[in-house]
Amino acid sequence: MRGSVLRSGRMVYRDDLPEPVPGPGQVLVDIKACGICGSDLHFAKHGDDVLTASAQLEGLSAGVGVSVELGADVFMGHEFSAEILDAGPGTEAPPAGTLVTSVPVLLSQAGVEMIVYSNTTFGGYAERMVLSAPLLLSVPNGLDARHAALTEPMAVGLHAVNKSDITRGETALVIGCGPIGIAIIAALKARGVETIVASDFSAKRRELALAVGAHRTVDPADGSPFESTSPAVVFEAVGAPGVIDDVLRRAPSRTRLVVAGVCMQPDAVHPFFGIAKEINVQFVFGYDPAEFANSLRSIAEGEVDVAPMITGEVGLDAVGEAFDELSDPDRHCKILVEPNL
Amino acid sequence: MRGSVLRSGRMVYRDDLPEPVPGPGQVLVDIKACGICGSDLHFAKHGDDVLTASAQLEGLSAGVGVSVELGADVFMGHEFSAEILDAGPGTEAPPAGTLVTSVPVLLSQAGVEMIVYSNTTFGGYAERMVLSAPLLLSVPNGLDARHAALTEPMAVGLHAVNKSDITRGETALVIGCGPIGIAIIAALKARGVETIVASDFSAKRRELALAVGAHRTVDPADGSPFESTSPAVVFEAVGAPGVIDDVLRRAPSRTRLVVAGVCMQPDAVHPFFGIAKEINVQFVFGYDPAEFANSLRSIAEGEVDVAPMITGEVGLDAVGEAFDELSDPDRHCKILVEPNL
Repeated sequence: MRGSVLRSGRMVYRDDLPEPVPGPGQVLVDIKACGICGSDLHFAKHGDDVLTASAQLEGLSAGVGVSVELGADVFMGHEFSAEILDAGPGTEAPPAGTLVTSVPVLLSQAGVEMIVYSNTTFGGYAERMVLSAPLLLSVPNGLDARHAALTEPMAVGLHAVNKSDITRGETALVIGCGPIGIAIIAALKARGVETIVASDFSAKRRELALAVGAHRTVDPADGSPFESTSPAVVFEAVGAPGVIDDVLRRAPSRTRLVVAGVCMQPDAVHPFFGIAKEINVQFVFGYDPAEFANSLRSIAEGEVDVAPMITGEVGLDAVGEAFDELSDPDRHCKILVEPNL
Repeated sequence: MRGSVLRSGRMVYRDDLPEPVPGPGQVLVDIKACGICGSDLHFAKHGDDVLTASAQLEGLSAGVGVSVELGADVFMGHEFSAEILDAGPGTEAPPAGTLVTSVPVLLSQAGVEMIVYSNTTFGGYAERMVLSAPLLLSVPNGLDARHAALTEPMAVGLHAVNKSDITRGETALVIGCGPIGIAIIAALKARGVETIVASDFSAKRRELALAVGAHRTVDPADGSPFESTSPAVVFEAVGAPGVIDDVLRRAPSRTRLVVAGVCMQPDAVHPFFGIAKEINVQFVFGYDPAEFANSLRSIAEGEVDVAPMITGEVGLDAVGEAFDELSDPDRHCKILVEPNL
């Protein structure tokens, strides 16, 4: 079958991938759309660093670490929607033709595997893949498959907002309006937060922030957002060195800082700044299955409008170019890979 | 009067200090004991850095910043107990001879001032000082004035524990058993926490940790404390670069890290480590007036035994030597300055 794989730092089109075969408890699906995630871009460029940092980590739950060989082709794509084609042996599943999505986790007799970076398990940058029957969510309300593919990134934003415990009357400042920042803004709006301020250097991204629910935007080139905002909760969705320390230095006393941007490099912070103001820093990652299901429901019910986020759609043979284009923040938010294009 | 002042990085004995005069709402007190705090040691050595870092801070409540001239003598000492001598004009206060303590804050017609580092307001390293009548707490139960002087540092530990929201069944790991770590251990014990693990390179400090309530100690020279402990809450009471990142790297998923050690230098952390495990970092500082009052009560009622913490007592003419001795962690925890010695 056809697909796009990571080879030596570049996404490469292949039309000779073996056909995936569902095992017991699994289904074979026909992929309709798969979003390109910033973490895929990062992994393509800095896979070595990701694996080195992951290897240093202790205290993780079993199976959460990443184990992949960069010398071989790597399959990626974890933001997908798909139609059921067939079920594995003895497997109960929705009927063929049902549009579904799923948390990117594959259950098999071998155990639990994240569908994120793998040399053996296909992700969403392909025609077909295997999913776990118990984890499938049927897409309701006739929701467009392209919109259903945004369940995953919107769940990331929802989880960050849930972890912040923000109340409607508290002011939120979202720093960085890439896909994660946009998902956070949409979740804040769905929660009814009355003052959402969004900060980004890109005019296009600030526009998008307003489209999904920000009440006001700030261009940090004109001065720190803290000059005009006194937030109770700050969401860091940039993931670049220096942002956390700047928040510690400028934010009001007792600010809750939610770090959702994934900075892989060592980052210099002044603990003294955090201490003097008793800042709380909540690092966040992913979502739980209930949040994933809520994310799908809120998109399907129109509480969250993901349409403005989709700034590009490409076929499997153009994934490499899409990865390149996504490095320009003024041009794109989310590009969907659609095997039928 | 006699006192010890910071001059060019050294504590210097003076017998020519002017007599403090209480204004309206203030009392004059006779200082019985004043603990030497690690922050005083740090300020003596690195006052410039403290002032530079403080000047960079934005978003603080008014009056919290430090404003002091290092070229002139600096008065310090904020962990004191004292007997009332006299009250200012029209001031209601407990009778002369009453043993009191107070949060180190001076209220005057000019406003609110921290009793911490000042060129004009005396602190506890002197024979007498002025305190604010509305903030005075009478020392109950005939408690020894030397023990009452530990109300302040023990309140710092109590506050850190309160901010952690730790429950009795959760395991606590306290990294660093200097005065702050010891105060945290004592507060954890008073709260009924059933598993308190303390880590320090110094054998003397580990002994002291056991004396105030730790159930088990670890020498990090023998291996990371995380090899034998899976804590829910980690208290960082070292304040040296590298400790926070090591916790982020080694601690279990969803650990709550309470940072009570004041690291003034920039410190390198890997946000990725925190993100992958959704660590929560709560920076803490000081205490509120209720916690200060609770700290005094728990010492006076014997819930917290501060006696083992007092490892030295010196007169006003030996404060400089005491500052030097405190740099040896195997020798001292808390040295009290007592004007009558």
